[in-house]
Amino acid sequence: MKSFVSIPKDSGFTLHNIPFGIFSTASTPKPRVGVAIGEFVVDCNLLAIKSLFNGPILRQHSEDVFSQPTLNKFMALGRPAWQEARRRLQDLLSEENKTISGNEILMKDVLIPLTAVKMHLPFTIGDYTDFYASKEHAKNVGTMFRGAENALMPNWVHLPVGYHGRASSIVLSGTDIRRPNGQKKAKDGSIKFGPSEKLDFELEMAFVVGKGNALGESISIQNANEHIFGVVLMNDWSARDIQAWEYVPLGPFLGKNFGTTISPWVVTLDALEPFLVEGPRQNPTPLPYLEDKESGSYDVELEVSIKPEKSNEETVVCKSNLKHMYWTFKQQLAHHTINGCNMRPGDLCGTGTISGPTKDSFGSMLELSWNGQNSVTLKDGSERTFLEDGDLVTIRGMCKKGEIVVGFGSCSGKIIQAK
Amino acid sequence: MKSFVSIPKDSGFTLHNIPFGIFSTASTPKPRVGVAIGEFVVDCNLLAIKSLFNGPILRQHSEDVFSQPTLNKFMALGRPAWQEARRRLQDLLSEENKTISGNEILMKDVLIPLTAVKMHLPFTIGDYTDFYASKEHAKNVGTMFRGAENALMPNWVHLPVGYHGRASSIVLSGTDIRRPNGQKKAKDGSIKFGPSEKLDFELEMAFVVGKGNALGESISIQNANEHIFGVVLMNDWSARDIQAWEYVPLGPFLGKNFGTTISPWVVTLDALEPFLVEGPRQNPTPLPYLEDKESGSYDVELEVSIKPEKSNEETVVCKSNLKHMYWTFKQQLAHHTINGCNMRPGDLCGTGTISGPTKDSFGSMLELSWNGQNSVTLKDGSERTFLEDGDLVTIRGMCKKGEIVVGFGSCSGKIIQAK
Repeated sequence: MKSFVSIPKDSGFTLHNIPFGIFSTASTPKPRVGVAIGEFVVDCNLLAIKSLFNGPILRQHSEDVFSQPTLNKFMALGRPAWQEARRRLQDLLSEENKTISGNEILMKDVLIPLTAVKMHLPFTIGDYTDFYASKEHAKNVGTMFRGAENALMPNWVHLPVGYHGRASSIVLSGTDIRRPNGQKKAKDGSIKFGPSEKLDFELEMAFVVGKGNALGESISIQNANEHIFGVVLMNDWSARDIQAWEYVPLGPFLGKNFGTTISPWVVTLDALEPFLVEGPRQNPTPLPYLEDKESGSYDVELEVSIKPEKSNEETVVCKSNLKHMYWTFKQQLAHHTINGCNMRPGDLCGTGTISGPTKDSFGSMLELSWNGQNSVTLKDGSERTFLEDGDLVTIRGMCKKGEIVVGFGSCSGKIIQAK
Repeated sequence: MKSFVSIPKDSGFTLHNIPFGIFSTASTPKPRVGVAIGEFVVDCNLLAIKSLFNGPILRQHSEDVFSQPTLNKFMALGRPAWQEARRRLQDLLSEENKTISGNEILMKDVLIPLTAVKMHLPFTIGDYTDFYASKEHAKNVGTMFRGAENALMPNWVHLPVGYHGRASSIVLSGTDIRRPNGQKKAKDGSIKFGPSEKLDFELEMAFVVGKGNALGESISIQNANEHIFGVVLMNDWSARDIQAWEYVPLGPFLGKNFGTTISPWVVTLDALEPFLVEGPRQNPTPLPYLEDKESGSYDVELEVSIKPEKSNEETVVCKSNLKHMYWTFKQQLAHHTINGCNMRPGDLCGTGTISGPTKDSFGSMLELSWNGQNSVTLKDGSERTFLEDGDLVTIRGMCKKGEIVVGFGSCSGKIIQAK
C-alpha cells in the first residue's frame, strides 16, 4: 500500500501509521482533529464535512467527533470506530483512491503542511497514572535511594507498581519547563529551600484510555486493548533532590508535578501491531488476572538527546526500547481496574522510565550519572550530571520492521530558570 | 441576624453558613446552583433569572454561573464574588428583607424542601490531592506499618506530606461503595487475590480550590485564602490489606482509588472564620514559605458512626476535631504550588485522616482496632475490626461558638459486597 503523499525517508508518519492529533491553523484557529502523513496534516474535520467518512459508525458521528478540540469524543466511540477511521484514511490517502488526489482544490484544503499548523494537547486528561514498569529502572533507582539490598521491593514482581500523578501540569511538546523550587535535605542534614539542583528527564511512553469502565467494574486483560486508544512519548520531568526528601511514605509529589511533557501525535495500537514482541519473561507467573497468553510488548526504539542553549548540536545520551518494559500496557490497565477503579476517555497511564540493561540505555540522568557520580559529556564539550537551564531535551521513538515504519515524532522541552 | 426561614435547632444550615451545592428537582431535572438554609434549598439560578443578585460582580455573571451544573464557573470568579453572593443571600433570607418573604409565589418557587431535591457532585474535580496532616494519624499508621521507631518520617515535621489521588472515583454522599478485590500478602508470606478483608473509612475534610494559578507560578501563604473556596466532609475509603502490600515505594494506589465520598454542601472559608483557632504548635519552625503569622486551624467537631445493615441504630465510633490537624489548609496550598504546580478551580485537597490524641478520636478503623487487634462493639452487639458488607458509615461535622452555628451536613456511604 502506497500513498500519493510523498513520505520522506526519515518520517515515521507513514500510510501504515496514521497517528491522530489536534491542530489549528492561522486561517482556522479552532482546534480540530487531524492525522499526520509525511510532512502534512490531514484535516479530518474537513473530510467529515465533505461526508467522506462513509463507514457504518463514522457516517453518523464523524462531523461531531472530528470538529472537537480534543480526541476524547472520538476515542469514546470505541475501537471499531478507531479502526474504521484509520482504514478509511489509509484508503483516501492511497495511490489508488482519486477522491483527494484527483481533486486539486480539495487536496490543497485537506493537506496542510506540518510547518503551518499549531498542535494542541491531543486529549483532556482526567486522571494521570504513572507506572514503574521497567525492572532495570526500578533496580537502579532503588539501589541509589535505598541501597542494593532494598532496591527492588518484594511486591514489584507481583504487580505493576504505579501511583497517581498530576493531570493539570501535563503539557504539550515544545512547552518550556520552569526549574522548580522546593525543600531538600543537604548533605549535612539541614533542610534547605531553593531551585532544584538535580533536575532530570525520564524517558517514558504513555497509553491513553479511549473507552472507560464504570466505577465498580474491571477491565480484563483479554479485553484491555479494546480500551486503549494509543500511545505517546512522555517526559516525566523529575527534581531528584525534592523527590528524595519528600517521597516517604506516600510517594513522589512536588518532585514530579511541576511539569510532564507528551508528544502531540497519538499512535494507535492497531498501527503498532506489527511490532508486537515477547517481553521479558515474568517470574513468578503473575496471578490469573494479570496472566496473558498473548504478546503485549512492542519493539519501539527510543532515544533521548540534550541540546545546550548555546550549542547547535544535540547529543544522544540514551538509547532504549519499549520492549524492556516488564509489565505490559494490558497488565497495567487490568491491574488498575481490578479493584473497580473507573477509567474515563483521556486518562493517561505512563510506563515509568524505560531503562534497558546496558548503561547507555538508562532513561534518566539519575541513572546515567549514577546520582551525580559520573558526568555525561555532550558534543560541545560541556558535562552534565543533571540538567542545566537552557537545555533542550528531546525524546524520539521509531518502529521499523521490513517495509513497515511507524514513528512517534518527538517530545521536547527546554529548561528555563527558576523563579 | 435572623432568617424568616425557620432553622431547626440541630441544623447547621444557618443564615451565617450559606453553603453552596448543586441540586436538581423532579420538575426541573437540570442540575443548578443552590444554597442550603434550614430544611430548604434556595434556587440561586432562579434568583439570578429574577435579577436579584445586584452587586457589582454578580449583576453581570449570576445568570451564567448559577445555571451551571457545577460550581466551577462560580468559583473561578474569585473570593470577592463568593463574598458578594453570600452577603446578598444572607440579606435576601433575613427577616428584614421582604423581597422573598413578602412574595408568596416567589417564596414557593425559590425555597425547595431538602427532601424534594436530588444533590449532585458540587464541582468537577480536575486533580485530587490527599495530605497526611494529622500528626497523631501519621504516628499511629507509621507505627503499625513500619514499627514505632520509623513511625514518623523525618520529613513530616518540615513539610505537609501529600500525594496525588484519583479524581474519577470521587462520589457524592449516598453512593454505595463496592468492596474492592485485589492482591494482598497473607501471614504465611504467600500472595493472595480476593476481596479486601480490611476495608476501612478515613475521617477527612477537604478544601476545594476556587481560583487557580498558572503553571510555573506559586500561591503564597498570605494569599492562600483568596484561592480556597470552601470545605467539605470526606471519607477516603481504604483497603488496608491491599494498601500495605502495594504502597512501597510509590505510595497508596488501588488501596484507595476504588472510591472517595464527599458531602454535597460546600461551606465557605468566610462562614468558618468565627471558628479560627490556634493549631498545634509547629516545632521546628517551618521554612519561610510555610510560615504563617495568622491562625489557620478551625474548630470543627467531627464524628463517625457505623450502622450495620440489619440494625436501625448507628453507633458513633469516633469523635475528633479538625483543629488537631498539624498543617493548615493555607500551608497545604502554599506547599503544593511552591514548585510551580498549577491548581485549577475544582481541584480538591484532602486533609488526610483527622485523628486526635485520645483513642476515641482516632479517625479510622485501622487505628481504632489497632490493625485488628481490638474490636469495636456496636450498639446492636456486633463487633468490628474493619467494615462489613452492609455497613453504612456516616461522617458529620459541626461548628458552634456562642450563637453562631455552622454545619457541614453529612457524608455517608454503604459498603456493598465485592464482585
